[in-house]
Amino acid sequence: MTRVLFAALPSRWEEYESHLRAAFAEAGLDVELDTSFAPETVDYIVYAPNSDVQDFTPYTRLKAVLNLWAGVEHVAPNPTLKVPLARMVDAGLTEGMVEWVAGHVLRHHLGIDACVALQDGVWRRHVPPLARERRVGLLGLGELGAACGRALAELHFDVRGWSRSAKALPGVACHHGDDGFSAVLAASDILILLLPYTAETESIIDAKALARLPQGAVLLNPGRGGLIDDDALIAALDAGHLSHATLDVFRTEPLPPDHPFWAHRQVTVTPHIASDTRAPTASRVIAENVRRGEAGEPFLHLVDRLAGY
Amino acid sequence: MTRVLFAALPSRWEEYESHLRAAFAEAGLDVELDTSFAPETVDYIVYAPNSDVQDFTPYTRLKAVLNLWAGVEHVAPNPTLKVPLARMVDAGLTEGMVEWVAGHVLRHHLGIDACVALQDGVWRRHVPPLARERRVGLLGLGELGAACGRALAELHFDVRGWSRSAKALPGVACHHGDDGFSAVLAASDILILLLPYTAETESIIDAKALARLPQGAVLLNPGRGGLIDDDALIAALDAGHLSHATLDVFRTEPLPPDHPFWAHRQVTVTPHIASDTRAPTASRVIAENVRRGEAGEPFLHLVDRLAGY
Repeated sequence: MTRVLFAALPSRWEEYESHLRAAFAEAGLDVELDTSFAPETVDYIVYAPNSDVQDFTPYTRLKAVLNLWAGVEHVAPNPTLKVPLARMVDAGLTEGMVEWVAGHVLRHHLGIDACVALQDGVWRRHVPPLARERRVGLLGLGELGAACGRALAELHFDVRGWSRSAKALPGVACHHGDDGFSAVLAASDILILLLPYTAETESIIDAKALARLPQGAVLLNPGRGGLIDDDALIAALDAGHLSHATLDVFRTEPLPPDHPFWAHRQVTVTPHIASDTRAPTASRVIAENVRRGEAGEPFLHLVDRLAGY
Repeated sequence: MTRVLFAALPSRWEEYESHLRAAFAEAGLDVELDTSFAPETVDYIVYAPNSDVQDFTPYTRLKAVLNLWAGVEHVAPNPTLKVPLARMVDAGLTEGMVEWVAGHVLRHHLGIDACVALQDGVWRRHVPPLARERRVGLLGLGELGAACGRALAELHFDVRGWSRSAKALPGVACHHGDDGFSAVLAASDILILLLPYTAETESIIDAKALARLPQGAVLLNPGRGGLIDDDALIAALDAGHLSHATLDVFRTEPLPPDHPFWAHRQVTVTPHIASDTRAPTASRVIAENVRRGEAGEPFLHLVDRLAGY
């Protein structure tokens, strides 16, 4: 018998309970699953970083923490966590992200907002350029960034990517390092942020980075709110250097009603919907990691605690 | 020396002249190109159906008419045309169409309009379904329909296609015939029209066809205006059976300012921009067909005059 503690908000428990039980059964695992156990009896924690569990010290038998979220910045630095931590890598989460990114890139590429707004009887025939003439930059080439790069390249966009370490992706001109960072920014008519949030990426999109973007560039942030210096972004939009920002993630969520992003004409706020774990597929990923743990096999999607992602 | 008459609006001549000359030179052809010649001296006509040339009788030496447009419904039935007619199949035209279709499918799939409109400080977190849960129907599986089907399948949409004759496309459940037509309509949360305009497809989207669509369906028409019975569409929108129509083509273009489509809340008019031939790539297609004609090889992209496309 393996004890799995579900440590996340009650709404998540409603969403996940039946899917997790089904996935454990499918994996042939004898699991006791609940939202509360004596800590010293727990083998695994299915974990959301906004749960009540913040001190892992009493969990003396714990073998691994299996995160429900792709983002781990709120749990990776936790000094009480001494066991392996796995990120969620869920096909549904990746697909949702690709759809949001492709949808908003095409929206800006085709000028859809203006078309939708200007239904005034005037036939303004302005054919947009082809995707192959539109330069898209992608910061972050992890699981999500790579999937978005592939999809945008398949749509024939002229895609450049940047990551901390050197990578190679079909259809994406890959850069890394400081020089690569500047090169990608300078060639991004549309820039997409899919970096992890770490000490190194905090406010990586600051006034200096924004100034490197081409005049009229569009910024899409489905990654992490802390990647952007909000004040610098608003200044760049007000100055007309950037034409638009579509933001899905924020330093404080829900985004407070009085935050200037809401009222800004050149900002579109989407309420952290770009990507979400989907209970049926995510439950299978969790069950597979429990199976691996019990079989003594290496866990999937382990976090490098030092790098923070 | 081969004489090629350019018969299209003057604005097109400005756009095409240098690209055509370059493409003929690249193909090693000795071509005399102009907008006017004695008809009996012309070998090929590069043709737009809205040009002054409507009677081909005086063109006694003519070897082929090379259409600049993908649509041939205004020239295919011309009884004075006795020589082969080639449609334009241009990579740029196909790519533009795929981009418009993918962009508007994703716009409706993700509910982008509501997000853009409702920037009121209220955090309405409603995660859209995944593309794999969204059924997209494609009427017409020619060059453009097939390319759109491929792109939508790559984005993981649940795609069904319909064409007059049986076809097979990867990632697209292909149907044909009357039963297939009804089956595709009944399973199309988003329906895309990419049929040629012929006697058989005139008003193919009438009240009966619209009634077969699921409640709340969205219609996209980047194909031909005459495919739709406009009054029936407006009635279906007013009744709430359809939720939205995004239309790029119309029976009369420019769409008259007093046409009810402009003012309808559930209609988005785009001004025939979904797809356009691109001079550099289209010129190469034309030069290749002239080369083939001069070498006695079969022409590319010939129109079946009887079928009308």
